[in-house]
Amino acid sequence: MAHWLRLITGRITQVTKMAETQLTQDLYDAANRMRISAIEMTIASKSGHPTSSCSAAEILATLFFHEMKYDIATPKCASADRFILSKGHACPILYAAWEEAGLLTHEQVLSLRKIDSDIEGHPTPRLNFIDVATGSLGQGLSCAAGMAYVGKYIDKASYRVYCLMGDGETAEGSIWEAAAFASYYKLDNLVALVDVNRLGQSQETALGHHMETYKARFAAFGFHAIVVDGNDVNALLVAYAEAKSVKDKPVAILCKTLKGKGIVDIEDMDNWHGKPVPASTIEPIRALLKGSEKGKLKAQKPVMDAPELKFEIGKIKMSSPPEYNLGDKVATRAAYGTALVKLGDSCDRVIGLDGDTKNSTFSEKLLKKHPGQFIECFIAEQNLVGVGIGAGCRGRTIPFCSTFAAFFTRAADQLRMGAVSFANLKCAGSHVGVSIGEDGPSQMALEDLAMFRAIPDSTVFYPADAVSAERATEMAANIEGIVFIRTGRPALPVLYKNDEVFEIGKGKIVRQTPNDKILIIGAGVTLYEALKAADTLAAEGIEACVLDPFCIKPLDKDLIVEHSKRVGGRVITVEDHYQAGGVGEAVAAALSDEAHVRIRSLCVRSVPRSGPPDALVELFGISAKSIVEAVKNF
Amino acid sequence: MAHWLRLITGRITQVTKMAETQLTQDLYDAANRMRISAIEMTIASKSGHPTSSCSAAEILATLFFHEMKYDIATPKCASADRFILSKGHACPILYAAWEEAGLLTHEQVLSLRKIDSDIEGHPTPRLNFIDVATGSLGQGLSCAAGMAYVGKYIDKASYRVYCLMGDGETAEGSIWEAAAFASYYKLDNLVALVDVNRLGQSQETALGHHMETYKARFAAFGFHAIVVDGNDVNALLVAYAEAKSVKDKPVAILCKTLKGKGIVDIEDMDNWHGKPVPASTIEPIRALLKGSEKGKLKAQKPVMDAPELKFEIGKIKMSSPPEYNLGDKVATRAAYGTALVKLGDSCDRVIGLDGDTKNSTFSEKLLKKHPGQFIECFIAEQNLVGVGIGAGCRGRTIPFCSTFAAFFTRAADQLRMGAVSFANLKCAGSHVGVSIGEDGPSQMALEDLAMFRAIPDSTVFYPADAVSAERATEMAANIEGIVFIRTGRPALPVLYKNDEVFEIGKGKIVRQTPNDKILIIGAGVTLYEALKAADTLAAEGIEACVLDPFCIKPLDKDLIVEHSKRVGGRVITVEDHYQAGGVGEAVAAALSDEAHVRIRSLCVRSVPRSGPPDALVELFGISAKSIVEAVKNF
Repeated sequence: MAHWLRLITGRITQVTKMAETQLTQDLYDAANRMRISAIEMTIASKSGHPTSSCSAAEILATLFFHEMKYDIATPKCASADRFILSKGHACPILYAAWEEAGLLTHEQVLSLRKIDSDIEGHPTPRLNFIDVATGSLGQGLSCAAGMAYVGKYIDKASYRVYCLMGDGETAEGSIWEAAAFASYYKLDNLVALVDVNRLGQSQETALGHHMETYKARFAAFGFHAIVVDGNDVNALLVAYAEAKSVKDKPVAILCKTLKGKGIVDIEDMDNWHGKPVPASTIEPIRALLKGSEKGKLKAQKPVMDAPELKFEIGKIKMSSPPEYNLGDKVATRAAYGTALVKLGDSCDRVIGLDGDTKNSTFSEKLLKKHPGQFIECFIAEQNLVGVGIGAGCRGRTIPFCSTFAAFFTRAADQLRMGAVSFANLKCAGSHVGVSIGEDGPSQMALEDLAMFRAIPDSTVFYPADAVSAERATEMAANIEGIVFIRTGRPALPVLYKNDEVFEIGKGKIVRQTPNDKILIIGAGVTLYEALKAADTLAAEGIEACVLDPFCIKPLDKDLIVEHSKRVGGRVITVEDHYQAGGVGEAVAAALSDEAHVRIRSLCVRSVPRSGPPDALVELFGISAKSIVEAVKNF
Repeated sequence: MAHWLRLITGRITQVTKMAETQLTQDLYDAANRMRISAIEMTIASKSGHPTSSCSAAEILATLFFHEMKYDIATPKCASADRFILSKGHACPILYAAWEEAGLLTHEQVLSLRKIDSDIEGHPTPRLNFIDVATGSLGQGLSCAAGMAYVGKYIDKASYRVYCLMGDGETAEGSIWEAAAFASYYKLDNLVALVDVNRLGQSQETALGHHMETYKARFAAFGFHAIVVDGNDVNALLVAYAEAKSVKDKPVAILCKTLKGKGIVDIEDMDNWHGKPVPASTIEPIRALLKGSEKGKLKAQKPVMDAPELKFEIGKIKMSSPPEYNLGDKVATRAAYGTALVKLGDSCDRVIGLDGDTKNSTFSEKLLKKHPGQFIECFIAEQNLVGVGIGAGCRGRTIPFCSTFAAFFTRAADQLRMGAVSFANLKCAGSHVGVSIGEDGPSQMALEDLAMFRAIPDSTVFYPADAVSAERATEMAANIEGIVFIRTGRPALPVLYKNDEVFEIGKGKIVRQTPNDKILIIGAGVTLYEALKAADTLAAEGIEACVLDPFCIKPLDKDLIVEHSKRVGGRVITVEDHYQAGGVGEAVAAALSDEAHVRIRSLCVRSVPRSGPPDALVELFGISAKSIVEAVKNF
């Protein structure tokens, strides 16, 4: 035992003399059995990442069989410690740990990567012990920070959150967004571990084994940073004990390891990323086993101090209905803020998160009324979404993230992975389209519908007025999954009565006559342009039906088909969005199998510029005037 | 003059005694004239960010009128120093600097945010002195690092690159990706400045005025970090001189400033973000002027040592044509790597950039043949794209960025801003769709076509075989703008002859008979499924025309219309992509105005999973079998 280790353990009572002998032996045995299993499963699947797994064997063995509190009977128990394998490609060692714990059989883990197995190539919550999917690197720490925030400030429970990253992935900026967040909020229930195995996919990482640089970076970002030999179980146990003694800071345990640790002729060698190793490497590892049997080490049971939740998704109502007068000018972003407060009134687990835009998105209304239900995430949208996904895990909260819709593109990969996580996440994006005006193209969301529509099983609301915006927000809280609410900057007239009933996937006809010759589909600001155009056309004797889709996904195909047929198959869509993946393409796709329907699409077709909103709507061809021209040219 | 300043200046010759008096006075006058102009232009536009401008007045004055080398006659001169205002919302002070320099008139800057003015709300390259658009925070440093990399290693010239960030935006992880990159490559020609004015949009920043934390963070990321009073011109001049003496490290100058500096009753106050200030605040600033006249300070001229470029976009040819045999099994990603080498042979300004996936995307072929034309960017895709955009500025290189297509979503906001920058950027995304197989959904790009199609004026290639992949890559080098090449993981048969001619916006009919009853559009891997399906159908007496769109944007509408009419209006699209914004919607949109054409779309409709490629193609309904069924059900 090293001198420094004795010095540290002298200060820490948890690691006793006995632990240093029998416990150590048992943990090394567990780690080596996990190594063997990881190698076997990747041989069976003919693909996967055994070397990235083996570097982390001692880290997972010590976490799972000494440090963490959980119960394999209820892996998603609200009070259990959380573990996020941010380096998701190393999942064979995670599966091996759950096998060692008794949750999975060896037969099950050998089904790795098979089409009928949930033991996937990267972890997904199809498995009951996984909260968030990983595999796109650098995302786990944000989710972990979201869980830790909820644990400390909302659940006010004792569970701790452990997140294991690879060294290569610390090049992802999202890690540092999460790190800054964790220290700002003093998340001393969060332990970030880095498996510094030196080797990336295609070459050595930028920092190799420069452990002091990792330490300096995490320390500068407000962590209590500890460097250990990550293949030394005693060193890890000491570090965990030290971590528990730290108050008001998150802890980073920087584990110096070897990639492929324990694999003869492969350990610490380049060019062994993501490929199985020879079966002959197993026997030398087996020879290291010291006789402790699988199942001897038992995890500590959770302290059951996470509160029971009282809300039920599907039954959350705003504290009061919309209260507007028809024609009142209200921005949909303002109505979103109002609705969020009303949901927060009714359910203390409805929370708001924002990225220093809360005075523009109006999420600050929730902060003012219910400060305990709001998380300021500063200008770091990847982390905003990651924290939201983490906060929503195990159903602990219903997270509403808001920022300018354009800046949700910053978190496109987090949203993509949110779908793989089957996350329960609500995103409200404001300031959409050219109609924001003078701030110019950098602030204009014109691809957000494409991004959110492309998320499998997502719901996309695009309310045009304040009443429908409030109802979209209320529905969002009651849908399991990813929901986007597209809100606008301009204050526009209230169109719907306060008791108007809105439904998911149902649009509204806002203007019709028996003589309609064309169907105009507008959404948000362009719905008003469509109505203006219909007035102009009516004055010239051309009647037009105007449809507010309200919900872009699922789209109300039946309503669109019905009225497109009624008007003789002429449809015009008009949207403050680019063409790709927008309202026009959604409508074209929905009607593509209908013969005799012709659709023309008005949308923004080039990079916009600064200017007054109305002038931009005109210049980019989505104004009432453009609609009138398009109708006449049909 | 402070003691510490005398101590430092003792070591630095550039700041002389005279400079400390007259130069100081002149620079303060310039800064205050710029303040006044910034306030006036935001009053005129009734919007904008005067307070974020005023904190940076001394920083810009000292940079523009003492430190930087440039010529207003040729702002885009290859040898001139570069300046990137990453905190783009502070552009009034940038416009004021160019006004002070004599490039813009006061009348011009007063047109801020008008629809007929290029003096936009956030900077765009519609102005000749701007290289990259900013306004989505945290992106400037990556672009600056790309420019500095090119300056040091490719141009091997003496120009320097200055990037001014806001303090709030350092919460963006992309800043730290860029910082790690800059230090790894020892970019001592890069100066990162942070305007630490303490206040964000909606509240104080996470770090306020904790200058030592900023210093520790930049130092930990490998910068020589200097803290100065950013409203003190002498302190700034000393810092610049110190920066020039630093070798093999980038420099960060952390400027402690006050938001709204110099604006009576508004300086250092919250709630003054992004709004004009009273005109009455101008006179007190004017009273500070010490009598130096506008135009007295002249910038140093550039040292003309950047080499002249010899290539011409539009005329870059691969060093040899494709060399395959029909039926050879070659992955399109491998053909991409081959083509990249051939382009690199012909043009030493064709460069490759990758994010530690070079052995999967095959960009490593370029590294091996032309190591000076390759930049490893590690696992940091935002920075990968940002560096690419920066490297391509002023036409210095033709950057080809590659990673898994799924991971380009990490840089969705950088790509969005790349469009606003009118960037010349080539992106090659590999491992698309469920056909990658066992690695599972986290690695499968299924929304990349939506993302790249939504970029205005982008070009999107989706080559099916090696010959077309090589030609797509060659064309990409010869198109100004953002180009995406979608490449696949599986090795599939070569379909086209080596001398087949490909064009932008032109598809190919790969199978037809005079009796075709349906048109099947497949792309990439699904083109092969379409061909298999056509064989099966033909055996049952149903002839199908099969079309390879090759170029998804612009789409070959004429070819599709021609053949859809020829076959009786029945079209099936099949793609390894989600519905939103994919091939099916692109085709539906292109044909939406055609009566009598009906389209059915086969695509991936739910979150995929791990499994063998063929099995996944089958399970997710995009296989030959699914096509056959769809044809029979039509």
